[in-house]
Amino acid sequence: MTESVRAFVPGHVTGFFSAHPDDDPTRAGSRGAGVALTDGVTVALEEGSGIAVDGEEVALEAVDRVLDALRVEARVVAESDLPLGAGFGVSGALALGTALVVNEAFDRGLSENELVTIAHGAEVQAGSGLGDVVAQARGGVPIRLEPGAPPHGALDGIPARGRVEYATFGELSTEAVLSGDTGELTAAGGRALSSLVAEPTLETVMFASRRFAREAGLLTPTVHDVVTDVSAAGGEASMAMLGETVFALGTGLTDAGYDADHCAISAAGAHLL
Amino acid sequence: MTESVRAFVPGHVTGFFSAHPDDDPTRAGSRGAGVALTDGVTVALEEGSGIAVDGEEVALEAVDRVLDALRVEARVVAESDLPLGAGFGVSGALALGTALVVNEAFDRGLSENELVTIAHGAEVQAGSGLGDVVAQARGGVPIRLEPGAPPHGALDGIPARGRVEYATFGELSTEAVLSGDTGELTAAGGRALSSLVAEPTLETVMFASRRFAREAGLLTPTVHDVVTDVSAAGGEASMAMLGETVFALGTGLTDAGYDADHCAISAAGAHLL
Repeated sequence: MTESVRAFVPGHVTGFFSAHPDDDPTRAGSRGAGVALTDGVTVALEEGSGIAVDGEEVALEAVDRVLDALRVEARVVAESDLPLGAGFGVSGALALGTALVVNEAFDRGLSENELVTIAHGAEVQAGSGLGDVVAQARGGVPIRLEPGAPPHGALDGIPARGRVEYATFGELSTEAVLSGDTGELTAAGGRALSSLVAEPTLETVMFASRRFAREAGLLTPTVHDVVTDVSAAGGEASMAMLGETVFALGTGLTDAGYDADHCAISAAGAHLL
Repeated sequence: MTESVRAFVPGHVTGFFSAHPDDDPTRAGSRGAGVALTDGVTVALEEGSGIAVDGEEVALEAVDRVLDALRVEARVVAESDLPLGAGFGVSGALALGTALVVNEAFDRGLSENELVTIAHGAEVQAGSGLGDVVAQARGGVPIRLEPGAPPHGALDGIPARGRVEYATFGELSTEAVLSGDTGELTAAGGRALSSLVAEPTLETVMFASRRFAREAGLLTPTVHDVVTDVSAAGGEASMAMLGETVFALGTGLTDAGYDADHCAISAAGAHLL
């Protein structure tokens, strides 16, 4: 094992999605769209076991599953710009980052598609995500046209750049939402994707995401108020799926008077450092 | 038109390839593998017509075809870290960069896949390239598993990072090679891809590329000598297809006593700046 190997995986906020379960975890996944962020997660390995994020021990089944799939015992040590459980794809980033560093440090000789497939399958089986991994592997503003990992999934992207602001007001459990009735959500996600494919621009992402959050019944009162305030100030914001988090283009949140962190759309997908 | 819009497209050196002609330019293309470079081409638009690269007027049918496809009259102004005609994918970079900046500056509202398809088709029809555009859109160390633009083509990648050195000793005409008998070349490219898919590592890319260059009869005496010198010094080098250019991992060329430029593997694909 080479301890100096590190990988960076961009954060990813999903604006809208539809859930597509399948017995085969590499075919299961989501359609939808979101934004990959220059704020993300840096993953490394040490001797030992367990997972530490910013010095705190965490339990993450998706990461355990990646280590099992690659037949490795190691301790995963990560630094994250973004909080866990708030809709930034941190669990997906940890799963994908672990796959990348294990492959390099233990000479597993797998391709990027193979590593993405392992990390995506691990996330799906753990119930912690359906689409972050494939989006984080790509970077930019990914559109998930077809669910699943390579070669089943299909991606496109919005050619866009610029600053992204975000503010988190609490956690939401992805597992709780995804294990409930997702019929209404998936119908709303399908309509959102149709509108985005017809006009693939960043403005459509934001508009379709706001409508999706409303139609799918996922807006919390706090998120509703913040998004409304950003709109009133002339900005573009929506809710990160699934977290009590608002993301905005440009200076949308600060213009509306909120304390917000900021980064940018990440041109790069996940990569070794 | 917004004159401040700019796009960066990484350079791309192909190590080996097989040619796959098709009447449909979006299905035509190549299989193969190469390396996307942090040295590349920055593209912008001005009022007027013509194409300037580093202040020199150039004629590039692929760029003209992209402008036609997007129904735009504009002057394309580019700065390139890399020379034209030497195997760095500069014509592909100009075609793809033009598609990205025109889409943004003229609000064409096309997705990344659509822009890649336009630029790839323009390159194929111009006869100036078969696989650079799809690789440059992706970044990293792309493997072209199936020829063509989205949705026909299929890509994978080698998870790799690091310094790349390169030195150019002259030009080769892509058009002249691709318009000749490509049977031997394509058979050698197929064997190289099989070996890479079996063991998708950077070392295999370099080894398979050297064997391909020899088997396809594309090695010039100068390139042969330089690659041999790098190997003798313990390094990994091969020939950039198609140029009289040698690229090497790490400090391969300088270790062998050559003057070389250097950059790194580009984690990012083509993107707006």
